[in-house]
Amino acid sequence: MTEYLTVEQMSDCLFSADNILILCHKNPDGDTVGSGAALCHALRALDKTAAVLCSDPIPPLFSYMEIPVYDGSFEPETVVGVDVASVQLFGANNGVPELASHVNYCIDHHAGNGGYADFTLLDSTAAATAELMVDVIAHMGAEITPLIADCLYTALSTDTGCFKFNNTTARTHMVAARLMEAGARMADLNKLLFETVAKERITAERMALDHLEYHMDGRCALIYLTREEIAESGVDPADLEDLTSLPLKIAGIHVGLTLRQTPTGSYRISIRTLGDVDACAIARRLGGGGHSRAAGCELEGNLDNTKNAILAEVEAVIRESQEGC
Amino acid sequence: MTEYLTVEQMSDCLFSADNILILCHKNPDGDTVGSGAALCHALRALDKTAAVLCSDPIPPLFSYMEIPVYDGSFEPETVVGVDVASVQLFGANNGVPELASHVNYCIDHHAGNGGYADFTLLDSTAAATAELMVDVIAHMGAEITPLIADCLYTALSTDTGCFKFNNTTARTHMVAARLMEAGARMADLNKLLFETVAKERITAERMALDHLEYHMDGRCALIYLTREEIAESGVDPADLEDLTSLPLKIAGIHVGLTLRQTPTGSYRISIRTLGDVDACAIARRLGGGGHSRAAGCELEGNLDNTKNAILAEVEAVIRESQEGC
Repeated sequence: MTEYLTVEQMSDCLFSADNILILCHKNPDGDTVGSGAALCHALRALDKTAAVLCSDPIPPLFSYMEIPVYDGSFEPETVVGVDVASVQLFGANNGVPELASHVNYCIDHHAGNGGYADFTLLDSTAAATAELMVDVIAHMGAEITPLIADCLYTALSTDTGCFKFNNTTARTHMVAARLMEAGARMADLNKLLFETVAKERITAERMALDHLEYHMDGRCALIYLTREEIAESGVDPADLEDLTSLPLKIAGIHVGLTLRQTPTGSYRISIRTLGDVDACAIARRLGGGGHSRAAGCELEGNLDNTKNAILAEVEAVIRESQEGC
Repeated sequence: MTEYLTVEQMSDCLFSADNILILCHKNPDGDTVGSGAALCHALRALDKTAAVLCSDPIPPLFSYMEIPVYDGSFEPETVVGVDVASVQLFGANNGVPELASHVNYCIDHHAGNGGYADFTLLDSTAAATAELMVDVIAHMGAEITPLIADCLYTALSTDTGCFKFNNTTARTHMVAARLMEAGARMADLNKLLFETVAKERITAERMALDHLEYHMDGRCALIYLTREEIAESGVDPADLEDLTSLPLKIAGIHVGLTLRQTPTGSYRISIRTLGDVDACAIARRLGGGGHSRAAGCELEGNLDNTKNAILAEVEAVIRESQEGC
């Protein structure tokens, strides 16, 4: 059982600690890396030994955070999980499983946090862990330097789609204001994080748009990419995740479908819906799952069979919802 | 000569006024409409007669603002220009020229404001007129209702690309926080304003991407749309404006070119550059103009000639800048 702490208590604990290892979650994103890096810089400014470690490579995109990566040069006395909701999410590489076998502190904003650490600072109303981290750092008495502001702005903006997602609150904007006053290089960061697309990603998007189909009187839009196209474009498959939001952006569309063929030939189907259509209900009929507005499943079969199968289930769920079943 | 007022002075003046006509600028955007509508709702809540007028139709997209449009039912005693930088920008329709012949008050954030009104509240450090309007309304003693918050949030977010553009400041985020606390329906508004694209626009974008070309060792990207394609897609030409930002989003690109053929056959060329290349210098060589990062020109001639002409000038400017001329 974990013990839940306030921001002030967590700050006091970290202020008393030393030789601190900060662990990010696997498949690292802007929040885990940015909040972790910010904490590390703050602890070092307080003359502590601290470093960051992640099971997966930290994207080169984040190099401006000047992250002190753990290189084994000190024996961790204190282990802190940042933005990590469960032990499984620490990942299996870089010696992380051993180092994460006993986690002293956890700072997180995921409602489903398992409480794996001895002490946890959890606030699931925060749009990003950065919203908590800024207070933790300030309460330790460390300055929010321009570098720390850059790290936290990255965390905040990436977790909220640059203040566009529904998790954005008044507090999110208050923290953004504070970080900008502290010198966050908003313009450069926004260009880098939100206004830059790899050439290969643009090629893949062009291919997907060339396949754009409308179904159900223009209420459903479908795009797809075959494994040959994905290979030809040269795109990093991880870069295709946000392609799944494209079909639903089209005016009048209630169900957006994105089919991506895997290297083995099956199709991963991403289902995105507006509030009146249950994406998870559609996915479940085909052995998948997810949330009410974003769900997915994977089907074996050729493209035509896959399209027919998913479209039939979309139609069935829409019909049922209209019949009030 | 206009007299410049503080927020408090402008509030006091409007509080003392009645039968107020609020004028937006032509080609109305979210800031002029949202700030104007917010002021109108606030004045009406203070039991004043007030209405909004624009020379051009207000986009149906903004219908949720419940804008009281001026219908001639009262004789304006007080005329207020909102987000209008010069008399020319009032436009020529809907009887606006007569009504704008004497403007009592102006509330604006454009540095180039001509000072055409008797009294002006101008702050060019504001990302949007909404940043001033929220204070004007509050100082009049009117409540920032959820409807007014929606209007001002629209103004603020559209003028900053949802807090992504370089004009965004700490104050912008502070105002956003205040509007969210006042009940702005951020999630619905963001979906409507930033996450919805017309089918015709997607079709045009697909066509443009099919023409994507790279030049100068991948440092220049070019897209184009012929008048036949624009007609075939059915897109509203106004909806193609933000297409001009697409080429520059591609990683490694320093010059993004967008060529759109006009109904008469000439090509409008939009030039977007990163900081090290002067877009205006390129445009000026072809009789155009603009700013250092965004400029444009228009050329007669067929597609190939036009492409060759603009690419030659891009190359010349890049070469000169490298030679330090």
